[in-house]
Amino acid sequence: SDRYSLLILPGDGIGPEVMAEVVKVIDWLGAHRGMAFDVTQDLVGGAAYDAHGVPLTDATMAKAQAVDAVLLGAVGGPKYDVLDFAVKPERGLLRLRKELDLFANLRPAQCFDALADFSSLKREVVAGLDILIVRELTSGVYFGEPRGIHADDNGDNEGGRVGINTQRYTSGEIRRVARSAFELAKKRRGKVCSMEKANVMESGILWREETQWVHDNEFPDVELTHMYADNGLMQLVRQPRQFDVILTDNLFGDLLSDAAAMLTGSLGMLPSASLGAPMANGRPRAMYEPVHGSAPDIAGQGKANPIACILSFAMALRYSFGEGAAADALEAAVERVLAEGVRTADLMGPDGGTPVSTAEMGDRIVAAL
Amino acid sequence: SDRYSLLILPGDGIGPEVMAEVVKVIDWLGAHRGMAFDVTQDLVGGAAYDAHGVPLTDATMAKAQAVDAVLLGAVGGPKYDVLDFAVKPERGLLRLRKELDLFANLRPAQCFDALADFSSLKREVVAGLDILIVRELTSGVYFGEPRGIHADDNGDNEGGRVGINTQRYTSGEIRRVARSAFELAKKRRGKVCSMEKANVMESGILWREETQWVHDNEFPDVELTHMYADNGLMQLVRQPRQFDVILTDNLFGDLLSDAAAMLTGSLGMLPSASLGAPMANGRPRAMYEPVHGSAPDIAGQGKANPIACILSFAMALRYSFGEGAAADALEAAVERVLAEGVRTADLMGPDGGTPVSTAEMGDRIVAAL
Ligand SMILES: CC(C)[C@H](C(=O)O)[C@@H](O)C(=O)O
Ligand SMILES: CC(C)[C@H](C(=O)O)[C@@H](O)C(=O)O
Repeated sequence: SDRYSLLILPGDGIGPEVMAEVVKVIDWLGAHRGMAFDVTQDLVGGAAYDAHGVPLTDATMAKAQAVDAVLLGAVGGPKYDVLDFAVKPERGLLRLRKELDLFANLRPAQCFDALADFSSLKREVVAGLDILIVRELTSGVYFGEPRGIHADDNGDNEGGRVGINTQRYTSGEIRRVARSAFELAKKRRGKVCSMEKANVMESGILWREETQWVHDNEFPDVELTHMYADNGLMQLVRQPRQFDVILTDNLFGDLLSDAAAMLTGSLGMLPSASLGAPMANGRPRAMYEPVHGSAPDIAGQGKANPIACILSFAMALRYSFGEGAAADALEAAVERVLAEGVRTADLMGPDGGTPVSTAEMGDRIVAAL
Repeated sequence: SDRYSLLILPGDGIGPEVMAEVVKVIDWLGAHRGMAFDVTQDLVGGAAYDAHGVPLTDATMAKAQAVDAVLLGAVGGPKYDVLDFAVKPERGLLRLRKELDLFANLRPAQCFDALADFSSLKREVVAGLDILIVRELTSGVYFGEPRGIHADDNGDNEGGRVGINTQRYTSGEIRRVARSAFELAKKRRGKVCSMEKANVMESGILWREETQWVHDNEFPDVELTHMYADNGLMQLVRQPRQFDVILTDNLFGDLLSDAAAMLTGSLGMLPSASLGAPMANGRPRAMYEPVHGSAPDIAGQGKANPIACILSFAMALRYSFGEGAAADALEAAVERVLAEGVRTADLMGPDGGTPVSTAEMGDRIVAAL
């Protein structure tokens, strides 16, 4: 069918505010571009915990399984820091990633020209930066067993406990996310750099061998290089434009993508897509969310920048619904509004600009469509 | 006794070149400051593999156990990339760390004023930067069992293998390195920021609880904060001067310390110390090494900067031999030579300066003593 079903999970902190602006875009596309969205909203994270005592109910999980795409705002906040591990807001997010099997997390790090001076890096190092981090999202040390904290009172262990997590990757898990990275690189500048610690971890050796295997057998025309993750991080800080697509595991991807985001100076602008296998209707399982967090310190004040969340929806148009033209138009609208000097609080710099609230930014973008 | 015994392991790549300059400093202190050093040299890494088929022989390991301090240059190079995991150059280094039980790795990241423009970050973000990373060095995913690559042919694992590593920390391992960090913070600006991923890893929860325990019971006057490692890395790139001492585990420390080093723009200048428990003579087990690697691309050309290795020896004077005054004098000599514009190739920038070779830089520093 040509109906697009969406589950919106605004979550905590600034999540609901920025998601409200995405809803304006969805409504506009429905009214003016004849797209038919079936939208449901529900709770995740601390908001779900407050209502139901868990960060994601089974009923919400079932809804997520049934839709074409999930849009997520952000989860977490200091209020929930005291909760048990098993019911922390993050567990809701991790359950969605795992049970939807969203193995490929796409995090573009782009430096918007109008904002290059916001970076802590020199303009000449980051201007024009456009890299894509592909992070494995459903395995590795985030999900490996055994895990936990246990008593361990061998004679010389002061404190008497031990904490364990397991980094575990199968060859199949590595190959499928590697394929995603190579496919994406083909549509970009044709280069993949894979990062692990094969010099100290056997799981890193397997990662290196399997990505090389996929390259040699299926994508010989894409350039593949390998770097140790510590060196990769150094290179990212020193000369980020040497990269096109960076492929890495769940934990290294968590750190490397945050570093890349920070380089751009545009954290409030960066979207992400988490993709899984195709469903019966041919669309991939998918969840879209901004890279920024719940920013509890500015929540409810109209200060949040909705652009990351809006650009995440643009990724949904492109990857879930094949609406590439609408995605392009939405991205162009964002660029136009920025070029006009329209700025939320996080983007107000020495160059002046027109200060606007979260809602005004959303209105301007819709007007520019 | 007042004799100081040293095992020098120059290693691979530029290791031998930079270590030759440290030997000049050692000789000068012996001749002019009446210090009595007993120096032995031996092989590690690829150099040891070439001679003996292993990256560290049992005989060399025994020598390392017997001396006051080990000075290490660097290990590794493309020539050894094809070797089996068990005999790679890195295994020699990891064996030294593990068997000497050097649990506290101190990595100062300092931005030298004369070099602030070498950073890819803006001068105003990094000028005056002086942080100390304390990395746990003998446990975690680097050494945890089980580990390895195995066959795993459950039906849907394409490729049929699985790679496993184990992140494992005991409360005792966390407490002892936390104590090192708090002790060091007391002599600095009195702040420790501990980094882990307690939101997704139980070993991170244990890390957080045990560092807090050591703080509350033994160092209530030092400020302790906790950050998730991904956020910590973002903060490090955005506003590094907010930190004093950063305490973290083996794997996060590997990445965070390289990022911190890169911020300073002075990778060729940064030393490190790895310290263990006190020996019978009261001195701590210790190994000192530059943060930079073996840089095979410039090896043997007289281009390497010996300062990181010389400053590592200054740390040896301070932490192993209680020769704080000599350490201060050596550090001051380095600063004086830099202030005079004397520059190895890596330090030649737009501001000109006097280009010198590795050996000339060593001579100048000795002359400045
Ligand atoms: C909130 C947290 C569980 C999450 C992660 O660690 O993956 C976040 O940091 C991210 O990068 O999406
Ligand atoms: C060479 C390698 C084994 C080592 C590590 O990963 O610890 C290095 O990167 C370091 O930081 O000292």
